[in-house]
Order: sequence, then C-alpha cells, then structure tokens
Amino acid sequence: MIQIPRGTKDLLPEETAKWQVIEKVIRDTCDVFQYKEIRTPIFEHTDLFTRSVGDTTDIVQKEMYTFTDRGDRSLTLRPEGTASVVRSYVENKMFGWVNQPVKLYYLGPMFRYERQQAGRYRQFVQFGIEAIGSNDPAIDAEVMALAMSVYKKMGLEKVKLVLNSLGDAESRNAHKEALIQHFEGRIGEFCSDCQSRLTKNPLRILDCKKDRDHELMATAPKLPDYLNEDSKNYFEKVQAYLNELDIPFELDPNLVRGLDYYNHTAFEIMSEGEGFGSITTLAGGGRYNGLVSELGGPDDTPGIGFAMSVERLLLALEAEGKAVQTIENVSFYIAAMDEESKVAAVKLTHNLRVNGISAETDYLNRKVKAQMKSADRLEATYAIIIGETEMETGIAKAKNLQTGESVEFSLADGLNELKKLVS
Amino acid sequence: MIQIPRGTKDLLPEETAKWQVIEKVIRDTCDVFQYKEIRTPIFEHTDLFTRSVGDTTDIVQKEMYTFTDRGDRSLTLRPEGTASVVRSYVENKMFGWVNQPVKLYYLGPMFRYERQQAGRYRQFVQFGIEAIGSNDPAIDAEVMALAMSVYKKMGLEKVKLVLNSLGDAESRNAHKEALIQHFEGRIGEFCSDCQSRLTKNPLRILDCKKDRDHELMATAPKLPDYLNEDSKNYFEKVQAYLNELDIPFELDPNLVRGLDYYNHTAFEIMSEGEGFGSITTLAGGGRYNGLVSELGGPDDTPGIGFAMSVERLLLALEAEGKAVQTIENVSFYIAAMDEESKVAAVKLTHNLRVNGISAETDYLNRKVKAQMKSADRLEATYAIIIGETEMETGIAKAKNLQTGESVEFSLADGLNELKKLVS
Repeated sequence: MIQIPRGTKDLLPEETAKWQVIEKVIRDTCDVFQYKEIRTPIFEHTDLFTRSVGDTTDIVQKEMYTFTDRGDRSLTLRPEGTASVVRSYVENKMFGWVNQPVKLYYLGPMFRYERQQAGRYRQFVQFGIEAIGSNDPAIDAEVMALAMSVYKKMGLEKVKLVLNSLGDAESRNAHKEALIQHFEGRIGEFCSDCQSRLTKNPLRILDCKKDRDHELMATAPKLPDYLNEDSKNYFEKVQAYLNELDIPFELDPNLVRGLDYYNHTAFEIMSEGEGFGSITTLAGGGRYNGLVSELGGPDDTPGIGFAMSVERLLLALEAEGKAVQTIENVSFYIAAMDEESKVAAVKLTHNLRVNGISAETDYLNRKVKAQMKSADRLEATYAIIIGETEMETGIAKAKNLQTGESVEFSLADGLNELKKLVS
Repeated sequence: MIQIPRGTKDLLPEETAKWQVIEKVIRDTCDVFQYKEIRTPIFEHTDLFTRSVGDTTDIVQKEMYTFTDRGDRSLTLRPEGTASVVRSYVENKMFGWVNQPVKLYYLGPMFRYERQQAGRYRQFVQFGIEAIGSNDPAIDAEVMALAMSVYKKMGLEKVKLVLNSLGDAESRNAHKEALIQHFEGRIGEFCSDCQSRLTKNPLRILDCKKDRDHELMATAPKLPDYLNEDSKNYFEKVQAYLNELDIPFELDPNLVRGLDYYNHTAFEIMSEGEGFGSITTLAGGGRYNGLVSELGGPDDTPGIGFAMSVERLLLALEAEGKAVQTIENVSFYIAAMDEESKVAAVKLTHNLRVNGISAETDYLNRKVKAQMKSADRLEATYAIIIGETEMETGIAKAKNLQTGESVEFSLADGLNELKKLVS
C-alpha cells in the first residue's frame, strides 16, 4: 500500500466541510475590506525566497522544498506567500495601477520541511493579505483589523493582538550595533547558528529556539529604545487608530518575527484558548517597506501584510470548544423498488439536481429497506419511494422524515411541488 | 528582477473574480449531486503515479515534476487527481464507510512539465469527481451528467459528449492480441516509443501524437468489435440512462484516453466553439475497476470519475463569446477632507465592514477630488465626504453616485440607515 507523504494529511469530507465555511468567512471579509484575490504558482525560482525571506533564516536554510526541473532551473515550493505576491506586483507593474494602494489576498498551501510535531504540517494552508503602496498608519490598523475580524466572525474569543515596532532602517541599525556590543563578548556561549548571526543579522539571535534561556537574552537591548522620532511617531499613530477602531492590543518589545523583511509595525495574534498547547501564534505580519525595491520594484514602495494559518484557526476553535457549523444533509432521497422504477428514480434524482435541489438515490441495487436506511443516515429531509403502484398511477409521495407527513406529487410534472417543499 | 517560472502564470484580481464564480458553480453542482470534497497533498510518493497512471504513459515518462526531499524520499507533484483520491480511499479504509458508493470531488492545481503552447500550462487546475464502490451503469450516467451540468450552468452551448467502451479485462485482452497482430509486421515504420509500446501496451499506440497519420492507424482493430457480452450489455445500459436523462452523446470507437487505468466507460467532453484552436477536449474520464485493488484496496472495487480543466472551461467560454458575470463594486466610499475627519472616515469604514458592508477609504492622504475619482473608479454605490462641517454637526450625507440623490445620517449612530440603503 502506498501511503501519504510524511508530514502531510488528507482532508476528508467531514473536515473539508469546515474548511469551506472558514474560506467563505475569509473571502467575505476580504470583500468588505476590499482586498482582491491573487493566485500565484505553487513553486517559484529559489532565488525569490533567498532574496526576500532572507538567507540567514531557518526557512531558507533548513526548511525549503527545493528541486531542479527538467530545464535545470532551481525551483522551490513556496514556504510563504508574501514573496510571491511582491514578485507578481513587480512583474505585473501593479505600481502603475490606477487604484492605489494595491490590496491583495491569497489563500492556499505552503510548504516547509519541518520536524514533525502536533499542529505542524509540511504542507499547510495560509491566508494572507498584502497592502502595497501606502505609508498611512491607518492601513496598518486596517490590516490588523481584518485579521481580528476573521477570528471574531469564526467565533473565537480568546485571541490577543501583540504589537511592536521594528522602526525604520536608521533605528534598526542603531539597535543592531547595540546588539552586537551586547553579545560579542560572550558569543562563544551561544549556538553555532547564533555565532554566525552575530555579524550578519544579530536580531535573529533574539529569535533562537536553542539559546532562548541564556541570561544575555533577557538583558538584550530592546528595539523600542532605539526608535528615532519618525519611527516613534508612526508607531504612535498606528496605536491611536487601533484604539479608535476598538481593537485591544498589547505591546511586546521582544516581538521580532522570523523573516528578515519587516520594519516598523510587527504584530502577532495569539490564542489564549486553554489546552491549545505550546504553539499559540495564529497569525503574524508587519510592514516591509524595503521588500518591493529589493525584488526589482520602484524604490521606497511601502507594503504591509499578514499571514494566518487556517489549520491553527481550526485548532484554536477546538481549544475554545467552538464548533464550525456545517450543513451536509440532502433534500430528497429517492428509493426504487424494482428495475423499471429505478429508471424513474434516476430520472427524478437528476431533474431535482439540475434544478438546484440536492438529491440522492441508490447505486447498489439494494432492497428498499436498505435504501431507506441510507436516507436516514444522509439526514434526508424527504424520502420518496417509487415502485409498481407509483409507475402505474404516475403519482408518488414525498415523506418528510422529521414530521412523518406525506405530500403527493405527479412523477411526470411534479417538480415544482417538490421545489416548494424545500425552498 | 525575478520572474515567474516558465509555463506558470499569476491569476490577478480580474481573473480570480471569474475563477471564484466558476468554483462556486462547481461546488454547488457537487452539493446537489451529493459529491463531497476531498483535499489531498500537492505531492505524493512517486510510486503512486508510476503504479496507477502507468509507467508507459507520456505523463510518467516525460512530464512529472519529481524530486527528492531532505529525508531522501522520491516525491512527485501530482500530475492528476485520481491516483491521490484512490490512495486516500485505500489508506483511510473508505470501503468500510456506511454510505456507499463513496462520492468525492477535488479542485486544485496539477503539474505537468509539458512543451509550452497556447492553453497549456505546467501548473493547471483540475476539477474532478470519483464515485468508488458501485458497478451500476446509472452512476456512469450520473458522472457524465454532473460534468455536463457544470458546463450548462456556466452557459456553454457548443459542448459535446463523446463516448466509448474499453470493455472488461477479457475484452481488452482480446483487443490487445488483435492490435499486436495488426502492428507487429510493420512496427519498424513507427516511432521508438510505439515500438516499445507494442508488447507492453499496444493500446497506447493509437494515442501516439507522432504516428497518428500512419495508414495502419485507420485500419487498426477497434475495441467495440472485441467487447464480450457482459461489456456490451453494460455499455448499452449506460447509453440508455444517458438517453433517459436527455443527455446527447456521440459514440467514438477510437476514444482510448491517455491513462492506463480505464476500462468499460470512457468519455471526453469537447468544445465545438469556433476559434478554440486545436485543443478541444474540456474534460475526460471513465471507469477504473482495477485501480483500487492495484493500489492495495479490496479486490474488484469498481470506480468511475472524470477530470476537467478549469483553464479550458474559461477558454471555451471565451470562444463562445460568453462572459463570466462577476460583482466587484464597493457599497460605500468614504472621503475625508482633513486629518481630524480622516479618523472619523477610517472609523466609519471599519464599522461598515464589520457589519458586512463593503467600504473603502483613502490611504494616500489625497485631496477630496482625487478621492472622489477613486470612488468613481471603484464604482461605489454611495460616496460619503467627511469634513469640518460634518464633524461639527455630527451629520453627513451618503450620495448615490448613480442617481445623485443624497441621504443624511448621523455619524454617531447612523449605521442602520446606511445598512438599509444597500440591503
């Protein structure tokens, strides 16, 4: 037997019914917030991710599915969505579109070769948005508001927004210098990854999973203390807008995010649902004002976005004991007693369906009793049995399986009566 | 600048709006026909496809994206959907589910490394269904009816269903012997692929793109002449059901399909739209009664399904001059005259959105005139301008941009009035 690849899973009908509900909430929310869908390929040239996500990150160094195609190109299954959207923004010259900023969303599978653990899959689904072309603190608030709105509509209550500012390039450089001074004397006590991060990207040290308990971590220089006036000003306005929109948040000066391209606003949304386990981050995002030009677009094009895990949204709902309401029953089940009436049953089933009404019939040539069991299991609203009598008279009955009431209708032209029963 | 990988494309908002409409039609049709969604991973163990699609097919020999992961497993981006669904059927023991047959649908990207040509992409989207566990000719008709129903709902008119029977194993073997006898004397005149097909899989010769014009092709033994009684009988019942459901079809004894696992019913749906070019197949499918046991499931588990290309559905609509109706306008555009009123505009925009009403505002700090141009371009139903007067009085106006009529409302608690305007 050939098995599913390690770290991936099948979503079977009971699960996909929930996913369809979540995806509808996501799409409806994007509609009202005026974000439009973009779909980029599942794989991209590997360069795209080393250049944007950053070649000192765990994602690029350890977790990418990279392969060579038959034309000898290095391709990588996308590990996240922002790089592809920005690549498309530049390639399709969206900076020239009349409606600015460009507001896009994506929803689809991403791939990271991670160690297996609960709640982590090597293929997982991210929903994310990107607003490119605006430097307005109001849009930072909008981006966070959209994420919170999705969680609220799904019924999550124990969700908190955590916020930080990484400042502009000047602020980050000042902080970087301070970090190097802080760590360099005792860098030998840190893991080899951190040692190479010291000069390349000391901010990443704060993100290290191995050295998180080292005493120098707690005393490391904090970004907020190095923000220049512009950066402080911007951050204050973002907070003011969040207050105006009644979106509560907490400040966390240690929040740095795992990707290199962020500046100014950085945020995470966490679940505080009980029993959710160690992974509590549901979504994360921030500003990336340098990324568009890094990927060949116009200089100084600002951007901001977030990505949220759909799998973790489902886990968070479970942790809060919230069910996703799905509808799965069928309107009519048509049973047939013999071969001749079977043809009539198949026809009636088909006619209901092409008129937009869900219907099911038997495809195993079973006895009527077994067919009626199926009707019960499928929670059919109405059952119809066609046999010799019905074929002779041309009249059949639709029985409401909840109330037991029956309604007669004509097999030849009773479709409208059946429609009325379920509309 | 980093470009999109060759043979793939981005779907930008104008396109995705159409895709969303098509996908809704697909999902709604599956609902009424009682097919439930399954989502399998983007990649599978390579073995799955060599075993099921067949190792003498073009797909397996030339077109698969195969790579080795960091755990040294050979993985392949799925080139089609049936193999994965059947793998999942076996692995999840769906043969034991109470509701039989198991009726599933999938909708997602597939990958084939093909020569670039119009209408062919290396990443493309297939919608497909599989009904596993029934040997009833009525379900063969149902499967074709579902496909035709999708095309009809999308408004396609020039679509034809072409049908053949490949018969059961006994019939196929008789035909295979006849094919070998027919070709072996002059096999030297055929391409090297066909030469190796002669003993392995002579049916594939009929499918060859290089040798399609060889004189022996036209005179090759036809499958219908080798069908045994059972196979003939089955095929006649399938046709009788299609007639009962008023689904027109043509018989084509040369239709063999490009995958190894088919038997009995095989069909294709073609577009006859003018100017559609050389690729006219929109969907194809058939019965695969041996595939489930081939992949480790119970012996003699029957199955049938189809796959359709969403890209080609769009091309066929274009060829028939049919537009996909999309809705993209915004209900309210809120313009602000100064910094103070901007905060009120952002708040109002947000409140409309969280109440399910689409709204947009300005994030570029532009003059009111430029903001109103945006309102026009976005085809906003109503525009609202907030300035000093509105802030002082607490009263603003919503102006219908089509009729020019204005309605006054309270900034503090006028949300219900605005809701009524667009409901």
